[in-house]
Amino acid sequence: MKERLIIIGGVAAGMSAAAKARRTNPDLDIVVYEKSGYVSYGACGFPFFIKGDIPHIEDLIVRTPAQMAAQNIAAHVHHEVLAIDPQQRTVQVCNQQTGQTFTDQWDKLIIAAGASVARPPIPGIGLPGVFTLRTTEDALAIRNWLETERPQHGVIVGAGYIGLEMAEALQAHGVAVTLVDMADQVMPTLDADMAAHALAELQAHDVTVYLQQPVQSFIGPAQVTAIAHRVAAKVQAGSGDGVGNGRLRVREVITPDQILPADIVIFGIGSRPNVALAQAAGIAIGPTGAIAVDAQQRTNLPHIWAAGAVAEAFHLVTGQPAYVPLATTANKQGRIAGENAAGGSAEFGGVVGTAVVQAFDLTIAHTGLTEKWAKAHGFNTASVTIQASSRAHYMPGSASMHVKLVYEQGSQRLLGAQIVGKDGVAQRINTIAAALHAGWTTDDLGDLDLCYAPPVAPVWDPILVAANVAGR
Amino acid sequence: MKERLIIIGGVAAGMSAAAKARRTNPDLDIVVYEKSGYVSYGACGFPFFIKGDIPHIEDLIVRTPAQMAAQNIAAHVHHEVLAIDPQQRTVQVCNQQTGQTFTDQWDKLIIAAGASVARPPIPGIGLPGVFTLRTTEDALAIRNWLETERPQHGVIVGAGYIGLEMAEALQAHGVAVTLVDMADQVMPTLDADMAAHALAELQAHDVTVYLQQPVQSFIGPAQVTAIAHRVAAKVQAGSGDGVGNGRLRVREVITPDQILPADIVIFGIGSRPNVALAQAAGIAIGPTGAIAVDAQQRTNLPHIWAAGAVAEAFHLVTGQPAYVPLATTANKQGRIAGENAAGGSAEFGGVVGTAVVQAFDLTIAHTGLTEKWAKAHGFNTASVTIQASSRAHYMPGSASMHVKLVYEQGSQRLLGAQIVGKDGVAQRINTIAAALHAGWTTDDLGDLDLCYAPPVAPVWDPILVAANVAGR
Repeated sequence: MKERLIIIGGVAAGMSAAAKARRTNPDLDIVVYEKSGYVSYGACGFPFFIKGDIPHIEDLIVRTPAQMAAQNIAAHVHHEVLAIDPQQRTVQVCNQQTGQTFTDQWDKLIIAAGASVARPPIPGIGLPGVFTLRTTEDALAIRNWLETERPQHGVIVGAGYIGLEMAEALQAHGVAVTLVDMADQVMPTLDADMAAHALAELQAHDVTVYLQQPVQSFIGPAQVTAIAHRVAAKVQAGSGDGVGNGRLRVREVITPDQILPADIVIFGIGSRPNVALAQAAGIAIGPTGAIAVDAQQRTNLPHIWAAGAVAEAFHLVTGQPAYVPLATTANKQGRIAGENAAGGSAEFGGVVGTAVVQAFDLTIAHTGLTEKWAKAHGFNTASVTIQASSRAHYMPGSASMHVKLVYEQGSQRLLGAQIVGKDGVAQRINTIAAALHAGWTTDDLGDLDLCYAPPVAPVWDPILVAANVAGR
Repeated sequence: MKERLIIIGGVAAGMSAAAKARRTNPDLDIVVYEKSGYVSYGACGFPFFIKGDIPHIEDLIVRTPAQMAAQNIAAHVHHEVLAIDPQQRTVQVCNQQTGQTFTDQWDKLIIAAGASVARPPIPGIGLPGVFTLRTTEDALAIRNWLETERPQHGVIVGAGYIGLEMAEALQAHGVAVTLVDMADQVMPTLDADMAAHALAELQAHDVTVYLQQPVQSFIGPAQVTAIAHRVAAKVQAGSGDGVGNGRLRVREVITPDQILPADIVIFGIGSRPNVALAQAAGIAIGPTGAIAVDAQQRTNLPHIWAAGAVAEAFHLVTGQPAYVPLATTANKQGRIAGENAAGGSAEFGGVVGTAVVQAFDLTIAHTGLTEKWAKAHGFNTASVTIQASSRAHYMPGSASMHVKLVYEQGSQRLLGAQIVGKDGVAQRINTIAAALHAGWTTDDLGDLDLCYAPPVAPVWDPILVAANVAGR
């Protein structure tokens, strides 16, 4: 009798796991249960779909259930796994379209249930027009709202990757965008000095940014009416904006210092691993709050693996588990879990937390630890920041970039880097990521034989300039 | 009494050496003798100056002799060193503007005499209109010829970096360009399969390319007249082109199969280290024909260092000396030599031979060994070549690139890589260069945590795709 692999979740990690398991063992029964209506989609493309760069949501679908069936992978959408029984090796599944639940038997189980956007109980968070962006359904709903409601005022809550990308996306629809964050800087994954460049870029593109402003409530029409001294102005303002005035939808976002008009809100204050199911089954959760896994993506329970945004990853710089829920890591961990569930013994190489975001004309990239995180981890931290040209300074297209290297004082061991600039940023962070994988010092980094040609790089690449300054 | 450092050559290696020696030891007497009329120029920018991207030759000058004097470095242009006496610790110098020679005393000597373009004794190579491109004077003469003679037909001999860049530069002046090379491919530093993409790009931009065509002679007007059956056509063709017909200048380039009209020729078939001076002084030449140096850039003679295109460099992949005369290496070696001549003991980290060239819209980059060179070095070589998108495939601006990884069969040790494409190529080769410095396998490369965002990179970076295919 064939062994049966059940995979909970059919996006990045789950689909990578399914595909790799199939390649590893052609005889395995492979079943994927996905809660949403779509599998195998590129969620990171949603802001660009919403903006309109990508015309059709289908462009983001890597494989449909039909294509997966051709690979002999049974992918079921609208199927939510309600419970895992590790002793009986079963899952309880709800077909959300029929409402029926059933029990399915597994020999091997991979949990790739992903993460959800945190939705704290802020008054009014459930109002129409307040969106999170995680699933395909979210993306479709936001684009539909933009195209049919034609909002004029957008508030984005959370100034991380998605917040920055969504600022550009909303603006492309003619929306005046305000970005609010409870932190004292944008891009919390950067040090404040580097995040300042991102803030300047947002402001240069007419995005209003309010920092240290936690959202207190979202206000709909009834409440607006009730607040007598504001009602007249609001009704007037609303009357010409094409959004029905009487209908229940978000009208305002309230923070300690601001009352922000809003007919669309994107709420994105970070993601949390969907661990409830695993936790209920006795699967160990790590110090980060995500599922603890070893290098083979095994959980503490036999025959159960976890991968992607539901799981931790080993951080090569700290030597400790970290929660870095990125699509790159999800794809890699999924492959490892899939191979191993199909009989292999592959090991995940760990992460250094390399990430990049494009905010208008600025590319913002980082890898490893920021200075503040390195200090928090107890490293005796030093840093250098240099400004240098992306290409030979005399060439057209050359742009200035800021490179910050974070390293350990004394040993000069490289701990992380941040680069912001308008040209040649993303791939440069990758070279430093390689240096972190190798465990190099700043001197090792400065020894690198990097390419040079005036149209693409200066003779002393910005990476080398930074490393040399650190080495003095 | 102050110690005196004499540096022979004032371009990349020489000027880096002077600057670093000054920073290392403020009390040192530092004298630079440069044969040409310019010091401290970015020679790699010449094709872009000639093309017109860079308006003024001064834009390519990093520091003038006056600026160097302000750093207490005496830089003498038009001064050729004729001889080195290692016993007496002197050099014999000719001031080319006065014709006078004199002897100068040194305590420390750095040879940074660079390289010259090979000029084999091909008949007619001395004709006006036949140029090499190495010095500032060469660059000025070529641009002047283009602007005053307004040539219609250009022949470039040698399809390496400079040949490709000059094809674009000449075309920008309305010149119909033919590129000839004696080899059976363009870009000899690539494998033939990857070079084919460069050839296609040249041809797509109306550059006529003839391979396996060694130049036999350059023909001037007298010879053209003498060849009776061709004279009428040539005089007619020449009469309307704005180039004086009677004047002695190049008219044709003759190869075994072609008679190519030419009123400008760029002759660039590779460079050779200027070792005659060193050789005459008893300085050891290495197996590559360049000056042998150790990691501290020391020659076999005490108190004499060598750096840049006159010297070898230790190749980290082969573990042997190599001749890789690149500006990046020259700058790094110059710094090492300068620091050590000033009392330090710095060591050069070695090279992996990373280089890049832009040919029209195509970027061509490589690092480490090509497959043919790896085989010639005795490696049991394997390779993979993949085609992948530079960004998420659905994003505007995404372009296909070809990535070839060369590795050792069995050990999977990475030996080199070549990338060609129109987007995101140059910096990607640097990540692989880092992998070569680290001595990684293809699996190690495939483990890298590289950045992803749809506008800048796909979730599986082309580097990872290639590494994963190699790892199967």
